[in-house]
Amino acid sequence: MEVTFKWQEQSHGGWQPRRKTVKTTGDKTVLGLAREQDIKIEAMCGGRGRCGRCKVFVHGPTNEVIASEELMLSKEELAGGVRLACYVRPQGDIEIEIPTSKTELMQILTEGAEQTVPLAPDITKTYLVVKKPELETPQGDRERLLSVAGSDITELSLGAMAELPEVLRKQDHKVTITRWQERIVAIESGDTTSELYGMAVDIGTTTVVGSLVDLHKGEEIAVAARLNGQAAYGSDVISRIEYASSGTSQGRRLQKSVMDTLNGIVTELEERTGIAGRRIARVILVGNTCMQHLAMGVSPTYIARAPYVPGFSHRIDVTAAQLGLTVHPDAPVTFLPNVAGFVGADTVGVVLATNMAHESHRVLMIDVGTNGELVMSNGGKMVACSTAAGPAFEGTQITWGMRAGEGAIEVVTINGDVETQVIGGTRPRGMCGSGIIDLVAELLKVDIIDDTGRLRDSAEIHSLPEQLSSRVRSGEAGNEFVVAWAHETAEGSDIVISQRDIRELQLAKGAIRAGTAILLKLLGLEDTDIDELLLAGAFGNYLRKESAVAIGLLPQIPLCKIRSVGNAARVGAKLCLLSEAYLEEASRLANAMDYVELSGRSDFQEAFMEAMMFPLLSTNGQDSTEINKKLPRDQTG
Amino acid sequence: MEVTFKWQEQSHGGWQPRRKTVKTTGDKTVLGLAREQDIKIEAMCGGRGRCGRCKVFVHGPTNEVIASEELMLSKEELAGGVRLACYVRPQGDIEIEIPTSKTELMQILTEGAEQTVPLAPDITKTYLVVKKPELETPQGDRERLLSVAGSDITELSLGAMAELPEVLRKQDHKVTITRWQERIVAIESGDTTSELYGMAVDIGTTTVVGSLVDLHKGEEIAVAARLNGQAAYGSDVISRIEYASSGTSQGRRLQKSVMDTLNGIVTELEERTGIAGRRIARVILVGNTCMQHLAMGVSPTYIARAPYVPGFSHRIDVTAAQLGLTVHPDAPVTFLPNVAGFVGADTVGVVLATNMAHESHRVLMIDVGTNGELVMSNGGKMVACSTAAGPAFEGTQITWGMRAGEGAIEVVTINGDVETQVIGGTRPRGMCGSGIIDLVAELLKVDIIDDTGRLRDSAEIHSLPEQLSSRVRSGEAGNEFVVAWAHETAEGSDIVISQRDIRELQLAKGAIRAGTAILLKLLGLEDTDIDELLLAGAFGNYLRKESAVAIGLLPQIPLCKIRSVGNAARVGAKLCLLSEAYLEEASRLANAMDYVELSGRSDFQEAFMEAMMFPLLSTNGQDSTEINKKLPRDQTG
Repeated sequence: MEVTFKWQEQSHGGWQPRRKTVKTTGDKTVLGLAREQDIKIEAMCGGRGRCGRCKVFVHGPTNEVIASEELMLSKEELAGGVRLACYVRPQGDIEIEIPTSKTELMQILTEGAEQTVPLAPDITKTYLVVKKPELETPQGDRERLLSVAGSDITELSLGAMAELPEVLRKQDHKVTITRWQERIVAIESGDTTSELYGMAVDIGTTTVVGSLVDLHKGEEIAVAARLNGQAAYGSDVISRIEYASSGTSQGRRLQKSVMDTLNGIVTELEERTGIAGRRIARVILVGNTCMQHLAMGVSPTYIARAPYVPGFSHRIDVTAAQLGLTVHPDAPVTFLPNVAGFVGADTVGVVLATNMAHESHRVLMIDVGTNGELVMSNGGKMVACSTAAGPAFEGTQITWGMRAGEGAIEVVTINGDVETQVIGGTRPRGMCGSGIIDLVAELLKVDIIDDTGRLRDSAEIHSLPEQLSSRVRSGEAGNEFVVAWAHETAEGSDIVISQRDIRELQLAKGAIRAGTAILLKLLGLEDTDIDELLLAGAFGNYLRKESAVAIGLLPQIPLCKIRSVGNAARVGAKLCLLSEAYLEEASRLANAMDYVELSGRSDFQEAFMEAMMFPLLSTNGQDSTEINKKLPRDQTG
Repeated sequence: MEVTFKWQEQSHGGWQPRRKTVKTTGDKTVLGLAREQDIKIEAMCGGRGRCGRCKVFVHGPTNEVIASEELMLSKEELAGGVRLACYVRPQGDIEIEIPTSKTELMQILTEGAEQTVPLAPDITKTYLVVKKPELETPQGDRERLLSVAGSDITELSLGAMAELPEVLRKQDHKVTITRWQERIVAIESGDTTSELYGMAVDIGTTTVVGSLVDLHKGEEIAVAARLNGQAAYGSDVISRIEYASSGTSQGRRLQKSVMDTLNGIVTELEERTGIAGRRIARVILVGNTCMQHLAMGVSPTYIARAPYVPGFSHRIDVTAAQLGLTVHPDAPVTFLPNVAGFVGADTVGVVLATNMAHESHRVLMIDVGTNGELVMSNGGKMVACSTAAGPAFEGTQITWGMRAGEGAIEVVTINGDVETQVIGGTRPRGMCGSGIIDLVAELLKVDIIDDTGRLRDSAEIHSLPEQLSSRVRSGEAGNEFVVAWAHETAEGSDIVISQRDIRELQLAKGAIRAGTAILLKLLGLEDTDIDELLLAGAFGNYLRKESAVAIGLLPQIPLCKIRSVGNAARVGAKLCLLSEAYLEEASRLANAMDYVELSGRSDFQEAFMEAMMFPLLSTNGQDSTEINKKLPRDQTG
């Protein structure tokens, strides 16, 4: 006998019908046959008849429906010829139709992480034909809908129920339900199964980025970013916590403020794609622990006080309406789990996106943002910590520091004289993080800064060319080095780096370096054991690795082992949006990561003191030719 | 060995400690011993170790904790000496403390229904001592709370979570949780287990009534009533449905309108009792099917169109915030189940409150409001129907009809001349339902109206006293009878009843009478088989039974079998508030009632034609002396 499989595959940007016929003797299940042919039918339980996911449409003679199938399939499905592929066996020539959305695997490309993800979001759409009411059996619309929706669906959101009577009758009792867990979240007339949208969001302390994702095709449609509106109430996590702790209305203001930002992103995505915010049925959010608290309106006060306890750690599910988010009001919104008060869901997102938990080698991940989060994985065993990196890398708390916008010096090289690259190609207005790190690395190389971080007096550097030595002078905050002269700058003042600025940078890089040292120590490892170093966050993209190594922000390892993975936190959120398995994995990861609180450890204090020093030039084994090769950068960091 | 039981009992308005010591050999469980002594320990499963409810504190030597107890008790409970009474056996002298709220039985007195209800609401409070955080194990506040809250609690409402960090630290990590199903609804500092409030509401088409109930003591604290604000958009169900169907914003307006009414009730209860609305943690609502739809914002359009299908029938749980109700925003709000489009949760409430489903005799329940709902129970087998009683009984659609307020003629007797009683003792302004029924009954008795409902011409009644015969005249709408002369009335016009008014009344009473006939027929019964006739709703209180029988609104049965049960719908809601078992019973009842749609039945049309006639006087076996005994009335109907 013959079994003919029919399914669809995505290629060339669209869905292509596929068809394959195989000969068989009738002793194998349809699922077994499909597997032999590499035809994909979803079966989460591995074909053991437990998950009820391997639904197929069967045409032709087969074995009888058995009790287990009756349990897992609705009457409507059974009547429509639906069977479970793991139970059904051919008894003659049959045709098997595989429902589309289950068959596809999708490819996500990110800046650094590339993973193949089965498209199986936890939100699904199903087209249903609902029984029409009869005078004798006046069952409610809700109950008639639930009776065909499947026995595991028990709830209907209030919003869906409000619309139900009209929606049912608009297209002859044919509807599409959007289902999440045991709940029907939304209902639409007719067959709209090909339209399902979700949003993945990374709420950064400074920037909020949202991706609109087509959950039917598994494609990112558009990305929009906005500055976090909370910035008006403090630029870093600690000042936001202070503001939120000053009163209930302040906390509420911060909640509303970030929702306004998010709603701005929803509007922008709507304008750019024509997909109304209301059609977004699922949202996954990541952010650091504090941002997650503020977005939910949960008091973050005790995150900042010993013993640094968050209000919640595990994954939280709410609805959009509860948050005031202008997507579909009943859309489930999930905040990914946090690891601790200062290692948040954004870090979990990065770990997910980079797949580092499943690498057999030793991976160190450093996410340098307003805070620095570090995760070290030793073949799956993971430890994480957070350091108050301070905003030095974001350009604040530095005399001429600025965010990476137009006019920021982003690259500095010293070859006899100072050469700079300015974002936007304009006259410089200040320096952003990568520029500051470059500058200090170059000043170390020419020995204008010594290994303790001291900016030498002009008397000590008279052997350097006049162009350089003339730039060193005494200023208000100790010695300073002129990076750009007044006549070259946008505002007509000298742009300098001062001794105090250098001390700020030492504190910041020292904290991250010391955190790295503690994580390695806890796993019994050394710098040289690091097989791969991942730099997450926008900052990681703009940083010159050789400068970061030169100032001792990163350990002294070959540059080829260092890799930028970009905004991997949002990629992690996107993976969770596309596949329920990733969402579950996120909780496992957050649980599995051992959190190390650095502030209470004396060995951290020691490591920190040591790490504030700059590496001696002689120990920096990098070839300076290689060091100066430029890496790609862009304008947004 | 000896077992000493300690518990509390409510008496003299407070809780009194009780103590009892019994001798035993150690072969009986604590639950078994308690039962022998009539000491109440809740055990829903009957002591079969399945429900986990029979928790007691044990002091002294006993058998070991077994695996089943470990499953049903939290670690904290086990550590604190909590055991399940159905498993624990003494092995020496022991002391058993029975938690208070489980031991009490409470008594509810209503106008007509008296039931003993175990005080076991589905919302409960538990006092917990939460583990303090440590630097090494920075578990979130939420997770530490959930770890001691019991394994069956998995959720924390967003509102509770927002407050959690502050609430935990206010009284040294000692808190009281309010729990509903698997969710923590609210959290308070310290031990507040003695404060738990709920509200039971009957949303009538005309009037909304709310009871504030102390769920710790099991007492009704206060009742407040308001006119349903939706009245501005139509006085009866059909006109409200028409308004709501005219557009989405209209539906929303009706939803907001009844919530404004409910919030007015909450404010009034707060002002009268000092108990803030926010402290109300549980709400149970009943109402007819249409009122339930409108209160939830669900389109009621198809209730009014054949085949008369509601948007939902089963019980619906939402939160106060979703409805815009100003009790605790996360308070669960339950709409009791409906039977059909025109037999709603209010009817289910009446059936619950009267316990008629569990009576062995034959009970007919008639709830005459804007609509008439009828339920006939034949030893538990129940059929229900609804008739468009029309607003005639509420005084509208009658020329001089009015609601039962000041100036309404509420009692009419004819002894030679017309005598009336007016609500408030003022000059009459019109007639309310009970007055109209009285008047027609009296006019039938003196043969001014014949059994077909014809108001005789003055020529036909010349044998009557002048005072009566002079009141009959020809008017715009056929013949009319003057009830009060212009000089006696508030507005200086004659108050009359016209031929058209009598026809309206005939239609209304005919519909109810015909509904009764069909229900009896379906159960193979006759009028004389009715053992008890219950009149529900405010109207039932004001109506004179003898008049209702005389006009044929009620069947010709002895008046002693007819009983008013008052606002039993709200009592039903209150029962569900006080005891989860009643809440579950409500769903069983709604399912068990067979609904009969009258509009499609030809036998109903026939019965209706017949029932519009008035009963022949000779067949009215009532003693007129008895008939004229006054029943208690009040001013609110």
